[in-house]
Amino acid sequence: MVAGHSMNTQPTVLLTNMRLVVCVLALLTAFSAGECGNVLVWFTEGSHWINLKIVLETLIDRGHNVTVLVPDASIFMHEKESDRFSYQNFSVSKSTQDMQDSLNDFLHFSMYEMDRLNLLQIHIRLYQLISKDQQLCLAYCNGALKSLELMDKLLQEKFDVMLADPIFPCSEVLAEKLDIPLVYTLRFSIAHTMERMCGQIPAPPSYVPGAISKLTDKMSFTERILNMLFYLSQDALASSLWKTIDNYYTEYLGRPTSYCEMMGKADIWLIRTYWDFEFPRPFLPNFKFIGGLHCTPAKPLPKDLEEFVQSSGDDGIVVFTLGSMVLWRYGGEKPDTLGQNTKIFEWMPQNDLLGHPKTRAFITHGGTNGIYEAIYHGVPMVGIPLFGDQPDNMVHMTTRGAAVVMDFNSMQTQDLVDGLNAVINDPSYKENAMRLSRIHHDRPMKPLDESVFWIEFVMRNKGAKHLRVEAHNLTWYQYHCLDVFAFLTTVLYICFKMAKFFIMRCCFRSKRKSKKE
Amino acid sequence: MVAGHSMNTQPTVLLTNMRLVVCVLALLTAFSAGECGNVLVWFTEGSHWINLKIVLETLIDRGHNVTVLVPDASIFMHEKESDRFSYQNFSVSKSTQDMQDSLNDFLHFSMYEMDRLNLLQIHIRLYQLISKDQQLCLAYCNGALKSLELMDKLLQEKFDVMLADPIFPCSEVLAEKLDIPLVYTLRFSIAHTMERMCGQIPAPPSYVPGAISKLTDKMSFTERILNMLFYLSQDALASSLWKTIDNYYTEYLGRPTSYCEMMGKADIWLIRTYWDFEFPRPFLPNFKFIGGLHCTPAKPLPKDLEEFVQSSGDDGIVVFTLGSMVLWRYGGEKPDTLGQNTKIFEWMPQNDLLGHPKTRAFITHGGTNGIYEAIYHGVPMVGIPLFGDQPDNMVHMTTRGAAVVMDFNSMQTQDLVDGLNAVINDPSYKENAMRLSRIHHDRPMKPLDESVFWIEFVMRNKGAKHLRVEAHNLTWYQYHCLDVFAFLTTVLYICFKMAKFFIMRCCFRSKRKSKKE
Repeated sequence: MVAGHSMNTQPTVLLTNMRLVVCVLALLTAFSAGECGNVLVWFTEGSHWINLKIVLETLIDRGHNVTVLVPDASIFMHEKESDRFSYQNFSVSKSTQDMQDSLNDFLHFSMYEMDRLNLLQIHIRLYQLISKDQQLCLAYCNGALKSLELMDKLLQEKFDVMLADPIFPCSEVLAEKLDIPLVYTLRFSIAHTMERMCGQIPAPPSYVPGAISKLTDKMSFTERILNMLFYLSQDALASSLWKTIDNYYTEYLGRPTSYCEMMGKADIWLIRTYWDFEFPRPFLPNFKFIGGLHCTPAKPLPKDLEEFVQSSGDDGIVVFTLGSMVLWRYGGEKPDTLGQNTKIFEWMPQNDLLGHPKTRAFITHGGTNGIYEAIYHGVPMVGIPLFGDQPDNMVHMTTRGAAVVMDFNSMQTQDLVDGLNAVINDPSYKENAMRLSRIHHDRPMKPLDESVFWIEFVMRNKGAKHLRVEAHNLTWYQYHCLDVFAFLTTVLYICFKMAKFFIMRCCFRSKRKSKKE
Repeated sequence: MVAGHSMNTQPTVLLTNMRLVVCVLALLTAFSAGECGNVLVWFTEGSHWINLKIVLETLIDRGHNVTVLVPDASIFMHEKESDRFSYQNFSVSKSTQDMQDSLNDFLHFSMYEMDRLNLLQIHIRLYQLISKDQQLCLAYCNGALKSLELMDKLLQEKFDVMLADPIFPCSEVLAEKLDIPLVYTLRFSIAHTMERMCGQIPAPPSYVPGAISKLTDKMSFTERILNMLFYLSQDALASSLWKTIDNYYTEYLGRPTSYCEMMGKADIWLIRTYWDFEFPRPFLPNFKFIGGLHCTPAKPLPKDLEEFVQSSGDDGIVVFTLGSMVLWRYGGEKPDTLGQNTKIFEWMPQNDLLGHPKTRAFITHGGTNGIYEAIYHGVPMVGIPLFGDQPDNMVHMTTRGAAVVMDFNSMQTQDLVDGLNAVINDPSYKENAMRLSRIHHDRPMKPLDESVFWIEFVMRNKGAKHLRVEAHNLTWYQYHCLDVFAFLTTVLYICFKMAKFFIMRCCFRSKRKSKKE
């Protein structure tokens, strides 16, 4: 890389692919300790699990018991991962390979297929992919919900709260069956469909860009049209896709219900972003923005790594990683073509490196967890977004002037060199990264503390119904006052017609009268 | 009075009229202390001032300097009230009597006139009253803004933030002239016009009742029509009334602007309620709900008062006061008809009495400050609302089952007896009051700490622009996507017409062809 002020010195690039977030748990002092409770966790995968695990560790530190429901086909959750959680396994009719295949199909679609397809084709392919994934998810649901033995055991354990990511369905039905409150943890749903349609969060399409639309809050007329079409098409897609789950829930609970209605019963939605990242937008009292809860101050580096970092002199170092679900991984011998100032690691202490004073830039795939560590430490970024929310995440950072972004499919070596030069040598990138860092740190309560507070609140108070808006009990036409408008328009129309009738009659009479005269 | 379980024992009534909120300042530990700053406060009156003063005291405790701008015609703010603030007087062309007259007109209107008038008459009278009040307010603005000497002095003092209640205009222009950020403290504006139209907070009329509408979040079809009409009429009234201020601002700043546009520049809106009182509704990142910041634990009562309270035995006591802007006041000798168990005070330690374990009920006019003390200590209420937001405030408490309400104009002695009997003897009232108290106390941060945090945040960061929604930069038709809908409808219409044209042409051709054949 590319450090310092000149491109003549060969850069120090740290290349990694498997990462692990090691978090020192923040000391919680700001709220009174509740009684110890029993926390049940619905299975989740990937970075969702990495993030949730930190909250669970903290709950255990505070004396609660945590039980994690793990399907035997899980890719990321492993029974022996930590002996602090109680793992409750359940069998499913699908294999880990089925789940991995589904994931691979998604990756392939968003990285290679999407650019070659038109809008209609994208929606059709997305419908096929999500439908297939839903079948998998419902097999998981069956594994838990239809096992009498498991359900009996869970009922007897008397849990106080259920934690779940709504991206993986069925936690809602399980919470209802166990008669316990539900707390969601969510990064986003496409075009915010879940948050809007089921959580009742208002999102005017004129300035709230749909999640993963790559739009910002400042939209031109054309962009506002695109955003509106994105909302409408995604809402239609979701409504159509969720029918399968609607039927499953209705059948299981033995009364007419829907996925959306059940999601709307969640007491708290912990959203894994904050206003350092998110464009400001409306929200509701039961939505809490707790982005960056996994971030911690940097710990000292191992001696050899510290020596290597120090060898960069004034030029400093660049950290390079493509996240936990990597596609680009290098595990062999270090190639001869790499300079002495470049090191390759199977795993590296990413957070400690980002927090090192010598770090000048971060080359990232644009995952939320990594971006948040860069925000936390005020490091400018070069983004090479790959799939999912990553391109959209990087738009949030480039809009704020804290990053430049590369196109993975078309980028050349020189693009990366230019990008790194820009974020390192143009001071505005560092200043903007530091501004985001200030916003991140300067808030009333640490995000991890806030998450734990609201989970414990729900446990103490058996829910948080006082934060739930009445919108949940309105139909869509009532919510938008369409019935009120229809009534008022009708009344106005009748008034107008009557006024016209009486005026005509009046004029006609007076005319007739004057004629007579 | 009226304590215990039977109406046979004569009640212990504590009657007062002037009240003073004595607040022990909460220890602030949850956030890092910023550098000391200069705080400028725009004048305000009545309970608005009582509430704001507590925040100012805390800012001074934390080392900041506070300068309060006081017109020489103020009713409630007095230069010698506290030697901890710097008072900056300014002359206005109106007298204290003018202000008092305007206030009395408002009180008379809302207590006696309103019930006798129809909806149109109410709006006309309200228009007259507010117009007259605006002239007064603009005289105040002139006193400050057009005094070159004062403006020079303020500019030289280099303030870091301006605190103001938007109910009293001109703080916006002053903040702009001094080039400092603005923090609002607001209880409500009628039908939330300021919050909605200028602060850009979304408020769907289907479940967000307009402030002082006396409606709840659960509305019937008729109520939703009424709420919609209330919103529409108040928006029209506000738009029309604000024209005077729009012109004043435009002339003063020498560029076209409006009252609403200037209000929209406020960095933070501190709203003096919370979800223990407010029906849950959408809000924005720069709206902070800090209701009840003046509440503190009860201090021991003076010896004679404690003895009197103890003499009530198991029956307990009832606290009775009609607030700081009283109409019903008794200052003379105690009448012979009052029993031995009733005491009259010129002033009483209301908060300490409400927090006393022997207190069974609180007879209140329904002011927000008093209601919050009752919520804090979990005391059920009998409301005798008089004017302004008081009837609406009591609706919030009756809806939650923590109060009964009397009609001031028609109530009989027996109604009050029945009401007190209900809240004392029916345990549901106490339970509901305690539930609200739990919600009040069980939040991540004390409301006073949260207020001070956001004021200091704005001082540290010279504003809070990252919390300001892009909606401020959209026109009303852009905000509601009317231009997008118009475009999409036109495109759909053209597509439909073209499709029809081609189908017709096709059919026509094939018909002609077959005819020919």
